[in-house]
Amino acid sequence: MTRPRGDHSDRTTVRRIPHLAVTDRGVLEAILDAALVAHVGIVDDGQPYVLPMACARDDDKLLLHGSTASRLMRHLDSGQPVCATVTLLDGVVVARSAFNSSMNYRSAMVLGIPQMLDGEQKARALEVLTDHLTPGRRSQARPTRDNEMRATTVAALPLTEWSVKARSGPPDDPDEDRDLPLWAGVVPLAEGFAEPETDPSCPPGVDVPDYVMAWRR
Amino acid sequence: MTRPRGDHSDRTTVRRIPHLAVTDRGVLEAILDAALVAHVGIVDDGQPYVLPMACARDDDKLLLHGSTASRLMRHLDSGQPVCATVTLLDGVVVARSAFNSSMNYRSAMVLGIPQMLDGEQKARALEVLTDHLTPGRRSQARPTRDNEMRATTVAALPLTEWSVKARSGPPDDPDEDRDLPLWAGVVPLAEGFAEPETDPSCPPGVDVPDYVMAWRR
Repeated sequence: MTRPRGDHSDRTTVRRIPHLAVTDRGVLEAILDAALVAHVGIVDDGQPYVLPMACARDDDKLLLHGSTASRLMRHLDSGQPVCATVTLLDGVVVARSAFNSSMNYRSAMVLGIPQMLDGEQKARALEVLTDHLTPGRRSQARPTRDNEMRATTVAALPLTEWSVKARSGPPDDPDEDRDLPLWAGVVPLAEGFAEPETDPSCPPGVDVPDYVMAWRR
Repeated sequence: MTRPRGDHSDRTTVRRIPHLAVTDRGVLEAILDAALVAHVGIVDDGQPYVLPMACARDDDKLLLHGSTASRLMRHLDSGQPVCATVTLLDGVVVARSAFNSSMNYRSAMVLGIPQMLDGEQKARALEVLTDHLTPGRRSQARPTRDNEMRATTVAALPLTEWSVKARSGPPDDPDEDRDLPLWAGVVPLAEGFAEPETDPSCPPGVDVPDYVMAWRR
């Protein structure tokens, strides 16, 4: 059993296949920084709900972005514990048997009570979100108006109670399976941007900005 | 407000931006069929936990795959309600303002009490999962042994209470913003397979099978 670290708890100790647990905070941050969306779990009347939310890490907090009017955001503001999970799929692991086949992935789970941001903190959090989701755009975008700022909510989840589980590398087949005359390996999976599609209502002659072209990966 | 369908409930009625709600079951099925992983929410002692699980749709059920030994699987077997959410990110929507910027996505949420499968039902569900996660592989893979079958658990979540929310198309900027001399549009996002990586322990001369090459998309 992996021992909890200072910022782990019994609730976030990885019990199943503990050698896949990662306790390096840099790995947590790298996973969150690679994600555009977190799956956020809330509880209402005993029923869990899991909803996707745009996210960005700001130092020791995970920022979650939504509309002031949303049921989800009102729940996030209720003082109840939530869970935000980010999973990056890195590949399908094709073992000699279906039983040993698996996925390569990196998954981060953050537990906690979100704090709703306001005033200067909210304005700064929205900048962090915009810079993460649309890098380079903020200097060019039409600035946010006061009524828009009021219609936007940002929740901050502290990165204090978290766990990371990850798998990488080739299949873990038992030795007797490795001699089978059978291909095995990993088929890598990656998410990437394709060619930008210009809004048909753009005035003619407006090119795709360099900062948008740089998102391709 | 969108009215619930027969297989919707008040709990799955999309309240926020209801025009993004989708009630066509074919769309639900297409989203689930495009996913390798669902984010599954459970509740333990009032705390929600969201964990990624390999998934596949089998007709009117969502199959969730895990290890018999896992804490998650024991929870899924507890008769408590869960939520399984699949989100496909289709693009970043770059509006003239950060406020109107958004994501294109398709997200399906299924609520219910999972049923643990056994015997013939479990064996058949594992075939469906294998055919979904690694199409073509089953005819070639080393068959599953009895002890492996016992170590594997499949939960089935009925597709009775669900909702789908989706956004597509160009940014929704107000007319006065469209005249700004500013690029706007969508940067499509897609997940794809890369070149297969052969396990170094494969005997020489074993080529990547055609069915694996066909996964590239």
